Amino acid sequence: MKAWTIRKPGGREELQMKEKEMPAVREGEIRIKVKAAGINRTDTLTRQNTNLKAPYPILGVEVSGIVVDNHSNSPHLSEGTRVAGLVNHGGYAEFVSMPADRAIVIPDNLSFEEAAAIPEVFLTAYQTLYWLGELKDKETVLIHAAGSGVGTAAIQLARQLSNATVIATAGQSEKLDRAKSLGASAVVNYKKDSFDQVVQDQTEGRGVDVILDFVGASYWDMNLASCALDARWVLIGTLGGAKIDSLSIGQLMMKRLSLKGTVLTPRSDDYKARLTHEFSKRALPLFNEGKLKPVIHSVIPFKNLPEAHRQMEENENIGKIILSIEEESV
Amino acid sequence: MKAWTIRKPGGREELQMKEKEMPAVREGEIRIKVKAAGINRTDTLTRQNTNLKAPYPILGVEVSGIVVDNHSNSPHLSEGTRVAGLVNHGGYAEFVSMPADRAIVIPDNLSFEEAAAIPEVFLTAYQTLYWLGELKDKETVLIHAAGSGVGTAAIQLARQLSNATVIATAGQSEKLDRAKSLGASAVVNYKKDSFDQVVQDQTEGRGVDVILDFVGASYWDMNLASCALDARWVLIGTLGGAKIDSLSIGQLMMKRLSLKGTVLTPRSDDYKARLTHEFSKRALPLFNEGKLKPVIHSVIPFKNLPEAHRQMEENENIGKIILSIEEESV
Repeated sequence: MKAWTIRKPGGREELQMKEKEMPAVREGEIRIKVKAAGINRTDTLTRQNTNLKAPYPILGVEVSGIVVDNHSNSPHLSEGTRVAGLVNHGGYAEFVSMPADRAIVIPDNLSFEEAAAIPEVFLTAYQTLYWLGELKDKETVLIHAAGSGVGTAAIQLARQLSNATVIATAGQSEKLDRAKSLGASAVVNYKKDSFDQVVQDQTEGRGVDVILDFVGASYWDMNLASCALDARWVLIGTLGGAKIDSLSIGQLMMKRLSLKGTVLTPRSDDYKARLTHEFSKRALPLFNEGKLKPVIHSVIPFKNLPEAHRQMEENENIGKIILSIEEESV
Repeated sequence: MKAWTIRKPGGREELQMKEKEMPAVREGEIRIKVKAAGINRTDTLTRQNTNLKAPYPILGVEVSGIVVDNHSNSPHLSEGTRVAGLVNHGGYAEFVSMPADRAIVIPDNLSFEEAAAIPEVFLTAYQTLYWLGELKDKETVLIHAAGSGVGTAAIQLARQLSNATVIATAGQSEKLDRAKSLGASAVVNYKKDSFDQVVQDQTEGRGVDVILDFVGASYWDMNLASCALDARWVLIGTLGGAKIDSLSIGQLMMKRLSLKGTVLTPRSDDYKARLTHEFSKRALPLFNEGKLKPVIHSVIPFKNLPEAHRQMEENENIGKIILSIEEESV
């Protein structure tokens, strides 16, 4: 089968399509004929990582496709079932295997490209909002990087599952317009305005209950000022730096804040299975009803992977960049 | 009735026993004839606080005693029932009222002095270990200020409710001996040794799952180094300063840490009622069986309150300082 790997760690010029062996499928796993794969920042970071152990893996951590072998005891995953989900690696390929308990059965109304746009960003957004952020009905949430894949997913989940009030920040007017159309009730262009002031105005001085923070250091003081009593502040990225110059424990205590760091990719198989299960139960019906929508920036043919990585690395996207694996494109 | 208040904000010399009106008892409340009251740091801080609104309240936030009026619909709190619990203020008095849903029915084998030593420290320890620390069976917990009221309660709860491995720190050998006798499996005299090294040795490099941090700034880097993956680090005091000079978000994320600030006293009535209810259900039977024990440093007659405050302010105590309100002592 055809698959994308790299000659050696480095830039996009190292990406190489190769003929590889079909992946093994173990007890409890399914093998999928891949139809589409999502591009993620972890892929471009893995591509550059010089510390990886040999042999270098096939890149790609999320796919959609058709079940071709079911070595699990799940009756819902018979051959021909349309599924999507997270794989540990090997997603940029014609075939891949994954633990059956991590498969999401694709709602009928979604294409393979749309389905491949769901797992990483919606599961991350779900984990961040609910498992870490403990978002409750009608609370207020501040979502930074509102144009990102996780940002666009989080705005929708917070609105549709929790009727939350969403305040979103981004640096481009198209991203802010999209955030509004997805349900944000207030948006802030961080290049023009201070979001903490908007938060104070929008919440009548109370602050927000949950922050999804992809930014880190450069927003630190404004995030702290934006927290309501008992707020949960979830750190999922450091686009604005990772080093904080000072921290007041007194404020953490008096505001009774929870500051939580997280990453999804290195979590255990069991964690991902539980997350997938809960997400499927709560959120998939809303995709079926059209209330939740995968946000796709571009669909790129399999053979043009370097272009997909370029879009990701240059932060061009609003929503997901999807690699499409049709027969003719391989 | 007799009650302790102050002439004006200030030192112990401002404490003044006065004749006060009996407290009102509202719907949903009980009135208690107080038999004993716990001394807490919040009392000495309130005594010094120049920002309090007039009129200055009767001090004291936890008591034990006998129900004399039941204005609630709880059949368990009839007149004559022995109860203990948190009050919003007014505990240093012959009578006090409290919400009925915050009353703990005292186990038969405990004296009033012992019962008054339970609410604040055991509820704080329970809240910190379970509601914030999410301590699970057989996890490892690092407890600083092991000789404090909350410390001695936390060691016992972690051992008895969760079979946890406890590593405890303190600065005096008597406090460390007491920590061991309460169930700590390793103790560290912070004046002699670095606790992070002991944590690494005791956990084979894995780190601890939960930290109860009363110390703050001066232990910051060692606490961070002591955290296992997915650790919960709960900030409940700043004995070692409140200002951190630098914070690495990268480590918070990679270790997937939760850093949570908390204070108990300003929490809502509803929160305290729920906490009291869950604590009573899980922990009170273990007091009955003698597996959990209030740790009492001293019992001081009602008229000698200034001496009780002195012991608290000079950190003399291992466990609780209790004010005893017998007829003859008033």
